[in-house]
Amino acid sequence: MGQLSSAVCQRSVMFPAIEHPLSPALTRGCPDTSTADVAYPAEVGYDYAAVPRELFAPAPAAGLDRWAPLLPPLAAPGLGEGGTPLLEIADGLLVKDESRNPTWSHKDRLNRCTTSAAVAEGAPGIVVASSGNHGASAAAYAARAGLPCVVLASAGAPPAVASFLAAYGATVLAVPEEARWPLMRRIVDELGLHPVSNLTEQHTGHAWGPEGYKTIAYEIFAERGGVPAAVFVPTGYGELLFGVWKGFQELHDLGLADRVPRMFACEPAAGGPLSRALAKGVPAVRVDVGPTAAYAIDSAVSGYRGVAAITRSGGAALLVSDEEMAAAQRELAGAGLWQELSGAAGLAGFRQLRDVEGPVVCIATSSGFKDLGVGATPPEPVEPTWEAVEARLRAAGF
Amino acid sequence: MGQLSSAVCQRSVMFPAIEHPLSPALTRGCPDTSTADVAYPAEVGYDYAAVPRELFAPAPAAGLDRWAPLLPPLAAPGLGEGGTPLLEIADGLLVKDESRNPTWSHKDRLNRCTTSAAVAEGAPGIVVASSGNHGASAAAYAARAGLPCVVLASAGAPPAVASFLAAYGATVLAVPEEARWPLMRRIVDELGLHPVSNLTEQHTGHAWGPEGYKTIAYEIFAERGGVPAAVFVPTGYGELLFGVWKGFQELHDLGLADRVPRMFACEPAAGGPLSRALAKGVPAVRVDVGPTAAYAIDSAVSGYRGVAAITRSGGAALLVSDEEMAAAQRELAGAGLWQELSGAAGLAGFRQLRDVEGPVVCIATSSGFKDLGVGATPPEPVEPTWEAVEARLRAAGF
Repeated sequence: MGQLSSAVCQRSVMFPAIEHPLSPALTRGCPDTSTADVAYPAEVGYDYAAVPRELFAPAPAAGLDRWAPLLPPLAAPGLGEGGTPLLEIADGLLVKDESRNPTWSHKDRLNRCTTSAAVAEGAPGIVVASSGNHGASAAAYAARAGLPCVVLASAGAPPAVASFLAAYGATVLAVPEEARWPLMRRIVDELGLHPVSNLTEQHTGHAWGPEGYKTIAYEIFAERGGVPAAVFVPTGYGELLFGVWKGFQELHDLGLADRVPRMFACEPAAGGPLSRALAKGVPAVRVDVGPTAAYAIDSAVSGYRGVAAITRSGGAALLVSDEEMAAAQRELAGAGLWQELSGAAGLAGFRQLRDVEGPVVCIATSSGFKDLGVGATPPEPVEPTWEAVEARLRAAGF
Repeated sequence: MGQLSSAVCQRSVMFPAIEHPLSPALTRGCPDTSTADVAYPAEVGYDYAAVPRELFAPAPAAGLDRWAPLLPPLAAPGLGEGGTPLLEIADGLLVKDESRNPTWSHKDRLNRCTTSAAVAEGAPGIVVASSGNHGASAAAYAARAGLPCVVLASAGAPPAVASFLAAYGATVLAVPEEARWPLMRRIVDELGLHPVSNLTEQHTGHAWGPEGYKTIAYEIFAERGGVPAAVFVPTGYGELLFGVWKGFQELHDLGLADRVPRMFACEPAAGGPLSRALAKGVPAVRVDVGPTAAYAIDSAVSGYRGVAAITRSGGAALLVSDEEMAAAQRELAGAGLWQELSGAAGLAGFRQLRDVEGPVVCIATSSGFKDLGVGATPPEPVEPTWEAVEARLRAAGF
């Protein structure tokens, strides 16, 4: 990195003829042109003749639109979802940062597709049952498409997530968890709103939804020129897991990739319906869910999509504890990525398994702003004297 | 949109030979294979022979790395900053959504460059004074580069932003606003930490910082094949304003663009040092700042960079009230973009000016999660009966 830079100097912004060496960076303005009264800033100067003109050549369509041939018709306008970075945080360990989507989670890829179905079918609006990311994402895509949206929210979401759900102008109704699906079915049947989350007792979900998640596989393949050995996925209902697997399977079937990665579902240990379904050899089960702060993936019910992704890829379902997710969350933040607890479940699963041959991709699904407990610990004030500040910094190892 | 899709049908995930028409979307699973016990999901099927193989051809480097020839040497590792979407929310009105950066604000473009200077110079760490976005972004880039980071935070940041500042492992010290710069200079002088925010009484800032913001201009030009007539920029110290202007000026000087957009600084009416400096014809002033919720841009002091961008582009500095920013924030959310209040200042300025010929770009700088008041209004619970829910939905216009 850096060897391609055409930067050659630093200049005064006021008097560009006054040049300084490129380094060290001028952090107090231009030393020659600043006066006692005015601190004039400096900027970087370049050898413009050395800049390759093809730098500004058109790039492929951005985000999901790039993959339109392999998606359902995208009748709903987009918000620039997809095209998220793949970051190597350790040797052979890659993280796909899905907090970089329009509503800062992977759900935007799904909702572009589900809202497209609603638009294509002329639905008068959409309805979604969600504790957070899915609902806010659906509300954003409905707003973008000019469709009304109803969100049946769980009462237990963090306060910031309640603001998030309400931000896009949807009608948000807080109801007890067990009432959400019966009410949603009724809203669909009586008002004709298009459902963009699950309607059935077991999880089936929207047929077009996981298609959006396939694009994660396409992006990884296009960026790396190959596929990883394994992918670790935070797993609630298994839709993301299935979609990513399907994308890799398609790349294999198209003759582009020589293998399909092993898919690892990473469920909160407090629940884990997919793990249970696989152990019992059944398509789906319902489990009791104990206490967990991973509220975005604490599903009580699984669906056949998860079973298909795991069994067809030779993968496995892993149960990760809140402590393991918290450790993974710290590891990600230490690499510059602040994820919500659920979003770190993929890395938690990888760290639990240890002996997986790489390269490995962990999907990180969502921003740390959405966690329970955010805002609970204000920074400790320090006396604003150099002595007090120096003591604190020395204690911190500076 | 949508005409390129190769989707042809829906299939049972369990029994792929069972096909259904592509539309309407199956939202209750496959009707043929589901049984009384198991709801089997459906998925979308494609005519894979029709998919163009060049779909997976390599794209240019993503984000800031694409523009390395026109940036200072990028010695610090990136987090995939840049490459944000440009969304048309009304005819000729485009929004550049900078909430899509690694720490969900434009500041990441700057901190990739400033941290690169710290790495190149072998600094033992970095220090930043910030009420929010700048500090968290610096902490993330320091973490990614393996450098310790000190954040001198204002005590008045929202609680969620305090969690954000602390998330990346920096040493966060909350001190009164007026103590931040003297302490910062002392930390630089005594501990040798590299400063990535301003050090001087008037604003000069880091010479390498605004270079990162130039990439916003490059991205707009590369995506549109031309430049807009005007750009509206939320403005605190004027670094973003200057950087975006410089990028467009370079495109003009390189012979690629035929004009430079008029740059409009959008400052909170509660302060507005750049407006004052321009009115007085001086490089920089200090003003008193009244109450405003736009805490991310409520600067008391301006710098010559802002004056240069406005005067050299034939633009102007606008003062926008909190009410105007709140209206712009609602307009953006209604298009699917939830911004913090400060982040909507660009659109607020455009709406104030009215008669600007397009196309126009408003820079939207940061996620709504960072606002004051987020989490203050939980959704009103509704009785979980169909009668109660129906009444609420009818009242909402459904």
